[in-house]
Amino acid sequence: MITLHHLEYSQSFRILWLLEELGVEYELRLYERDKETHLAPPEYKELSPLGSAPVITDGDLVLAESSAIVDYILDQHPNEQLRPSPGNPDRTRYLFWFHTSQGSMMSLMLMEAVFQILIARVPFWMRGLIRGVLNEASNRLIKPRMQKLLELAEEDLEEQPWFGGDELSAADIMLCYPMESAKSRGYITPKHDNCNDWLDRVFHHPSYQAARKKDGKDSIVLKV
Amino acid sequence: MITLHHLEYSQSFRILWLLEELGVEYELRLYERDKETHLAPPEYKELSPLGSAPVITDGDLVLAESSAIVDYILDQHPNEQLRPSPGNPDRTRYLFWFHTSQGSMMSLMLMEAVFQILIARVPFWMRGLIRGVLNEASNRLIKPRMQKLLELAEEDLEEQPWFGGDELSAADIMLCYPMESAKSRGYITPKHDNCNDWLDRVFHHPSYQAARKKDGKDSIVLKV
Repeated sequence: MITLHHLEYSQSFRILWLLEELGVEYELRLYERDKETHLAPPEYKELSPLGSAPVITDGDLVLAESSAIVDYILDQHPNEQLRPSPGNPDRTRYLFWFHTSQGSMMSLMLMEAVFQILIARVPFWMRGLIRGVLNEASNRLIKPRMQKLLELAEEDLEEQPWFGGDELSAADIMLCYPMESAKSRGYITPKHDNCNDWLDRVFHHPSYQAARKKDGKDSIVLKV
Repeated sequence: MITLHHLEYSQSFRILWLLEELGVEYELRLYERDKETHLAPPEYKELSPLGSAPVITDGDLVLAESSAIVDYILDQHPNEQLRPSPGNPDRTRYLFWFHTSQGSMMSLMLMEAVFQILIARVPFWMRGLIRGVLNEASNRLIKPRMQKLLELAEEDLEEQPWFGGDELSAADIMLCYPMESAKSRGYITPKHDNCNDWLDRVFHHPSYQAARKKDGKDSIVLKV
């Protein structure tokens, strides 16, 4: 049986949602971040091969990396809706968005988070200068790429309600974290109708709600 | 037939290698970066849904995102060695490294690249200050995670010569770009014996050599 080591306010929420959606048996262990540094506790860092969330254990196996964990779980519990196979008409759309979650959107949101942490942590006397440089970098390097991604999301969600097609898939489950980050950081604005509708659809999905209940927090993303 | 739009010194080299390894027919279009800004040319940005490399076209389909393209091509040309199926003993190792390429290693190397670009581009009078802040950020946020990743790579490559197991797989093809970046940025040092051996093994692989010949450049990564 899989044990999910879930760190609060982290990317591991998605694995919790996937397991709830599949309705399979699993063990859940909850870990809290340090109240001041917001870092994972030492026992989590020691457990995780990458020092970060998520991590699952399954017998002797310890596995990190969100997309790898999703594929590993879906190998054990094959589900054509959650992960369309080769030949399925939804396959290419699914592949694009499933991989874009970590390959593009999460990596941009991570960079944005690092910039904001740097601005907040430098001594006060240099904060204005650092803010100027990093905000300009964000405007040139992060914003245009995020805007392009969100335009593409608007187009695809205009055609079908979920990132993988007409039904919820693992692409949506993966994207809930970077999309929620994009919303909380002001990248998703009220003009992104379809992205906002999608976030609303996610929020009201029964298995998402069940996962939120087990998570017990006010938000899935860390708001620093 | 697939057309690969290959931008020099970019992540699209990996798609070129995959196509050469599969030995399938494809069309290759080469694009050069702007000599001064190193940016992709406008026609590439217009073609790419994400404004970045790689992109393939296949009839009406335009597909971006490296890992999605790799899965798309392997759907058309199934290959158990290059992408072990569920149930294959190499499957979990493959999944971890295939996804870690974009999910962790590439995103850390991208952040490192952005930091170095920022240091190089700020006005001279503030360069020392910015260098101090960003180098410290790199030391705290990028280096420990990259070192953990490379330690893990050392361990896994001690057991088997390729990231997916005993033979070359798409995990290796994906990782050639961030691993080459890690080498050129000094993250892979002479003490990383197994990573250096792996890079050497990659370099001498016949299909890698064939891809390098079609690419025609002195390096696969952009050295700025």
